[in-house]
Amino acid sequence: MNSSKDISKIKKEYQKFKNSKKLLDLTRGRPSSEQLDLSDNLETVIKGDFIQDKVDTRNYGLLEGLPSARKLAGWVLNSDPANIFVNGTSSLTLLGHYLHSMIFHGDGQVAWKDLDKVTFLCPVPGYDRHFAMLEKLGIKMISVPLVGDGPDLDSIENLLETDETIKGMICVPKHSNPTGETFSKEKIEALASINRDGFKIIFDNAYAVHDFNNSKKLPDIEKIFIEKNSHDSLIMLGSTSKISLAGSGLAFISLSPNNMENFVNYFSKFSLGSDKLNQARHTRIFNSKKALTEHMQKLAKIIKPKFDLVFEKLNELPDGLAKWTKPSGGYFVSFDSLKGNASKIHKLCEEAGLKLTPLGATFPYGKDLENKNIRIAPTQVELEELSEAMDLFCICVLLAEES
Amino acid sequence: MNSSKDISKIKKEYQKFKNSKKLLDLTRGRPSSEQLDLSDNLETVIKGDFIQDKVDTRNYGLLEGLPSARKLAGWVLNSDPANIFVNGTSSLTLLGHYLHSMIFHGDGQVAWKDLDKVTFLCPVPGYDRHFAMLEKLGIKMISVPLVGDGPDLDSIENLLETDETIKGMICVPKHSNPTGETFSKEKIEALASINRDGFKIIFDNAYAVHDFNNSKKLPDIEKIFIEKNSHDSLIMLGSTSKISLAGSGLAFISLSPNNMENFVNYFSKFSLGSDKLNQARHTRIFNSKKALTEHMQKLAKIIKPKFDLVFEKLNELPDGLAKWTKPSGGYFVSFDSLKGNASKIHKLCEEAGLKLTPLGATFPYGKDLENKNIRIAPTQVELEELSEAMDLFCICVLLAEES
Repeated sequence: MNSSKDISKIKKEYQKFKNSKKLLDLTRGRPSSEQLDLSDNLETVIKGDFIQDKVDTRNYGLLEGLPSARKLAGWVLNSDPANIFVNGTSSLTLLGHYLHSMIFHGDGQVAWKDLDKVTFLCPVPGYDRHFAMLEKLGIKMISVPLVGDGPDLDSIENLLETDETIKGMICVPKHSNPTGETFSKEKIEALASINRDGFKIIFDNAYAVHDFNNSKKLPDIEKIFIEKNSHDSLIMLGSTSKISLAGSGLAFISLSPNNMENFVNYFSKFSLGSDKLNQARHTRIFNSKKALTEHMQKLAKIIKPKFDLVFEKLNELPDGLAKWTKPSGGYFVSFDSLKGNASKIHKLCEEAGLKLTPLGATFPYGKDLENKNIRIAPTQVELEELSEAMDLFCICVLLAEES
Repeated sequence: MNSSKDISKIKKEYQKFKNSKKLLDLTRGRPSSEQLDLSDNLETVIKGDFIQDKVDTRNYGLLEGLPSARKLAGWVLNSDPANIFVNGTSSLTLLGHYLHSMIFHGDGQVAWKDLDKVTFLCPVPGYDRHFAMLEKLGIKMISVPLVGDGPDLDSIENLLETDETIKGMICVPKHSNPTGETFSKEKIEALASINRDGFKIIFDNAYAVHDFNNSKKLPDIEKIFIEKNSHDSLIMLGSTSKISLAGSGLAFISLSPNNMENFVNYFSKFSLGSDKLNQARHTRIFNSKKALTEHMQKLAKIIKPKFDLVFEKLNELPDGLAKWTKPSGGYFVSFDSLKGNASKIHKLCEEAGLKLTPLGATFPYGKDLENKNIRIAPTQVELEELSEAMDLFCICVLLAEES
């Protein structure tokens, strides 16, 4: 479709979609079956040998995970394995444990018992699940704009000066969800230079090795924070959910020695070990940095055509209606309606059978004040269905403009 | 050894143990390798078929677990699968999630935001990990004596009348840790009759199907609570940690429809699904109540001789020094020094190389006011080592008496 297309023709096409009653879904960043197939070998790698790293993986123990699993996580997060804690299948759950540990145990100096006095900076648009969790815990959130290579530093500086309840920040430093941007060295250094007692910056590095095109390199976050003497301000999270299996991967957190001591003091009251058998499956398959990289390249081959298709379809939209990101990795395209038509577009899509991430979800409290952002998640659907979904999406963008 | 044994001979035997520098450990209720071997078939049951209950187990989703896994958990807990939520590998972690949900979300009427006003009744001696968790969360604890078929009801009644901060109770209703007792119908009915807004009784049914001798039947807890119109007061927990693999089993919680709604509202902010692949492994092996029962009988054959040996050794102690429980299932023997010598016995054991559960651990705040209780966990060690450990233990009991 292009700008000269007749609006009545577009309305007809929209009606056709609606009449077909076909359900399409670009809601969540889920891997496709084809991606998951690449990890089927996890299930056959144990071969009756349950000893890994000289430990019987089947019993209790090793709350922090197998040494080999901590090494694997270190490759993903670019972190010293000594700083890594591997536990469970979900980095979101691990984030929850960490936040709970800060609320109930604290880090020696500071605990967040008085949640009315805990505020987090949230670069936006951001990951809906982060915001939902912070809101549920009663942690206040203040939006800070992302500017293409990380958050706007002036905004952060101003806020820190005027609001002493600000205790932390949460963000996705590489292929950010949903904007796809990767933080620059300048931004990381500035964040590492924030000098505030008990301040914690949580980098959810969910797409650390998830490039489908040549990508800007993420600076060595741990190194920079250690150099700036801010290791205690640094929390890094990750998982293999989008490397191996979405429901059955490994989740991990990287913490400074002080932070680790405080976290383990708390979390050891809630678990007697970790699923070392699942860790052994992973460390035997991803047994070198090279094996991990090669696996990610195979995944990229499946994912890239989907993003290319999304870009191709969006590029057909007439100028001036919208802008969108062109990530080189990750799971999302962030679409902005320039004229504040996000809710109209969203409604038109839903009514014709295309499900999208709930409106406003990419902002704290679900409130997109400019009514512009829509997150597109193209990975789970097959190419043919994605093509239809994007056609419908573009039709809705054009219709929203007209109505 | 018997009461007439010469004390100098006993001292000599103790010295022999000490000189051998052999390390023995009866600390924790861990399964032995032989027990774990019985579940090695979990690792070969998928056979390339990742679809279970018509779901691709490898992807995100089904926070509450696969229907077949909820059914399996229902057999263990004697609960309607519709009330069951299966997630993660640790019931302790799930208990933490539940307590967090009560603190941050509540159950509609009541939230435990003001933790200074939340107290739990703790039947004692009880499970050290329960007490450590409640303490870490800042929930106050009051001990209530266990009397052989559950907690003392008069004590509970008195406490409820005088202390309005009491919001719940936590206990192990079958083969209780460490006393091994199983709650009677009378006790369960009385507990279900407690009429107090927002009161929650957490039954950690960790040894629900873990009998190694003919056992008293646990009453149908869910049925009784529903009949008494108290389903919202009932929380039941369990896992397959001591059925299949200690580190890689399934954990589950049973909740009334109201409680489930509140819990899921909270927990859905902390996870995007469950490890359905591990659930599929389990539901294919434990595919009927019969398969589960037969498996538990195989485990019983390994465990029973260890308990028999513990009883045999303890029976050689002279009368009047101590008493101990004779459980027909579970993982522990609870030993009471009648003369308040627990700390002496514990110290003597430690100094000669026998590790025991930390003194006082079976009481809230780690305080055994009568200095009597020691928990013995005989399952992990092999019979020969257990025999040595119990010999040393009995020597220490006799020596403590003398010193």
